[in-house]
Amino acid sequence: MSVTAAQGFEAAGVAVGLKSTGAKDVAVVVNRGPLKTGAAVFTTNRAKANPILWSERAVADGVVEAVVLNSGGANCFTGAFGFQTTHQTAERAAELLDVAAGDVLVCSTGLIGTGDEAFRAKVLEGTEAGIAALSAAGGQDAAEAIMTTDTVPKTAVRTRDGWTIGGMAKGAGMLAPGLATMLVVISTDAVLDAAQADAHLRASTRVSFDRLDSDGCMSTNDQVTLLASGASGVEPDEAAFRETLIDLCRELARKLQDDAEGASHAITIEVVGAASEEDAVEVGRSVARNNLFKAAIFGNDPNWGRVLAAIGTTQAAFDPYDVDVSMNGVRVCTKGGPDRPREEVDLTPRATHVLIDLCAGEATATILTNDLTHDYVHENSAYSS
Amino acid sequence: MSVTAAQGFEAAGVAVGLKSTGAKDVAVVVNRGPLKTGAAVFTTNRAKANPILWSERAVADGVVEAVVLNSGGANCFTGAFGFQTTHQTAERAAELLDVAAGDVLVCSTGLIGTGDEAFRAKVLEGTEAGIAALSAAGGQDAAEAIMTTDTVPKTAVRTRDGWTIGGMAKGAGMLAPGLATMLVVISTDAVLDAAQADAHLRASTRVSFDRLDSDGCMSTNDQVTLLASGASGVEPDEAAFRETLIDLCRELARKLQDDAEGASHAITIEVVGAASEEDAVEVGRSVARNNLFKAAIFGNDPNWGRVLAAIGTTQAAFDPYDVDVSMNGVRVCTKGGPDRPREEVDLTPRATHVLIDLCAGEATATILTNDLTHDYVHENSAYSS
Repeated sequence: MSVTAAQGFEAAGVAVGLKSTGAKDVAVVVNRGPLKTGAAVFTTNRAKANPILWSERAVADGVVEAVVLNSGGANCFTGAFGFQTTHQTAERAAELLDVAAGDVLVCSTGLIGTGDEAFRAKVLEGTEAGIAALSAAGGQDAAEAIMTTDTVPKTAVRTRDGWTIGGMAKGAGMLAPGLATMLVVISTDAVLDAAQADAHLRASTRVSFDRLDSDGCMSTNDQVTLLASGASGVEPDEAAFRETLIDLCRELARKLQDDAEGASHAITIEVVGAASEEDAVEVGRSVARNNLFKAAIFGNDPNWGRVLAAIGTTQAAFDPYDVDVSMNGVRVCTKGGPDRPREEVDLTPRATHVLIDLCAGEATATILTNDLTHDYVHENSAYSS
Repeated sequence: MSVTAAQGFEAAGVAVGLKSTGAKDVAVVVNRGPLKTGAAVFTTNRAKANPILWSERAVADGVVEAVVLNSGGANCFTGAFGFQTTHQTAERAAELLDVAAGDVLVCSTGLIGTGDEAFRAKVLEGTEAGIAALSAAGGQDAAEAIMTTDTVPKTAVRTRDGWTIGGMAKGAGMLAPGLATMLVVISTDAVLDAAQADAHLRASTRVSFDRLDSDGCMSTNDQVTLLASGASGVEPDEAAFRETLIDLCRELARKLQDDAEGASHAITIEVVGAASEEDAVEVGRSVARNNLFKAAIFGNDPNWGRVLAAIGTTQAAFDPYDVDVSMNGVRVCTKGGPDRPREEVDLTPRATHVLIDLCAGEATATILTNDLTHDYVHENSAYSS
């Protein structure tokens, strides 16, 4: 059901040849209201793609009528011509939908540096075709159209207290934290104003997408958008809405992790006993980004020494000789020394759990990551060819 | 010639079974004087191996008589027992050499968490055998004994103005900056006091080993030691000595890069036009650590978009639309947009040059790194087995 699960939304996904496979490559999501509330978070990469530069401005007033998304080209570092492509995309959509161009967000994903005249023509064609195909059942098609190296479309839906939230996400590589780390559109029929939508979205992405660090590489194009139509007529309890949105974002983040390029393990790094949440996040992220640790997990090797070596590069409060590490339930390191034999750890399941107790406080954080595999190297060395 | 090229030094390399292959695994380097000057820089990883904890204290007074080094086990996170092993190693060497234990440095390299009773017995046996085998021709054996996954021993020698500097290095993985990033021993017969040795060493490692970032992973055991015997009787010109030491350190750093685990490209990232040297280093390191960039180079793909995406994650002064990138002499990106077609770039040679002009100032820095390959993943997933 994806982004059309909530009342007041229509979507479509069409194929216009941006992907050489002929698969769907342009998605349109439209908010039919009555409210046209929108909020978005963007990559913190300072090298921002043209759609990011456009959408940052377009969302500033908290009003969003539609989102046009394409795969098959990032339209990043394509100069003034590329920015005009984004601008024209928003204008074409606005014209056909009879709304203001400044209320249309644009998202692109694919190879950086791709955005020539042929690309522009196809994106504009897809915008037209997508709008012509809009329907309240189009959420699944839209979720398929934003896929790049994703092997499955990623959607999630929650219904509670008379309102619904639905979302779609894409992202299989270049997954690392900014404010956002992929293309995600979430829609709800709850009654939210722009300030509420913004606050709920930022609070939710901070503990979901921002805790996913598949390969340490931050994208130039990532955007997470929340649209609210108010079509349910229900003003949600703020706490209940936020809790549900966090839950939905975490499901989508898990789905991104599960489909990460070439990964053979989905690794949950749970840091406990930290002096602060910031420390816990720094430690988890440092381990998640350590290539030697990631390669060891690929080889089903419970190499806790690489975990401690990674922790040692952080500024977090900890004593190296007061750290405990467990892998898949087996305590392999106690107080910075060997504990149970490595042979007891079974790392063959895809789901992998690394528990790090810093013994320095009460704070916790969980980071999701993946292993470093032959397939990751292969996919990313052959990506542009 | 290695560490015995300069007058006043003896060395040895022996095999005692720390390596399952039967190759040499314990090295001893002794300074016969007349001066016993020593200086060292250590990993900045906060998780430090026992030999680091010992050597940091032992070098503090600027007097070093000998260095005992072993491969086949890092003696890191091996608890109080492991520290006693290091201590006993220094004491055994001191007893046999008739010097103070506090003037003997110890270095270890190999798997973290390795340091049981069998390890201790072999290291002590190797210390005795190494001292018995000391000779002024032993530098090559010592260089071989410190190898781990290195495929070749790494040595360099410079002679100038009546004095000589010789060095040996090991390191093929977990190569990333701290103060030092590998095991290196450098010896000279120039007349240097401890303060001079320390200043020259720090100035030299800062622009050589610290600019090598093969895989972003900082070791727990890295140490670079400079020993001065004064046996030439020559007080060197300070500037000439430093220039020569930098040159020698850079040669050793290049040799580490050329032999990095699994690498198929030795990549020189030259950053120019930076507002400060710090900015240039940050930008170069950010690109060097980007797995997507590293995988692209493996695939001979001049993917400059990934270079710009990596730069975008830094705090350096730059405008994304005023950056130029060349690869192996071909300008693929001008002012943040596509320039020459990627087909013109030949990335088949092992030596790869990436030139980044930030157009933001006059400062420069060069970072050495490697690509991300199937062999890197393989070696590091199978490392401990």
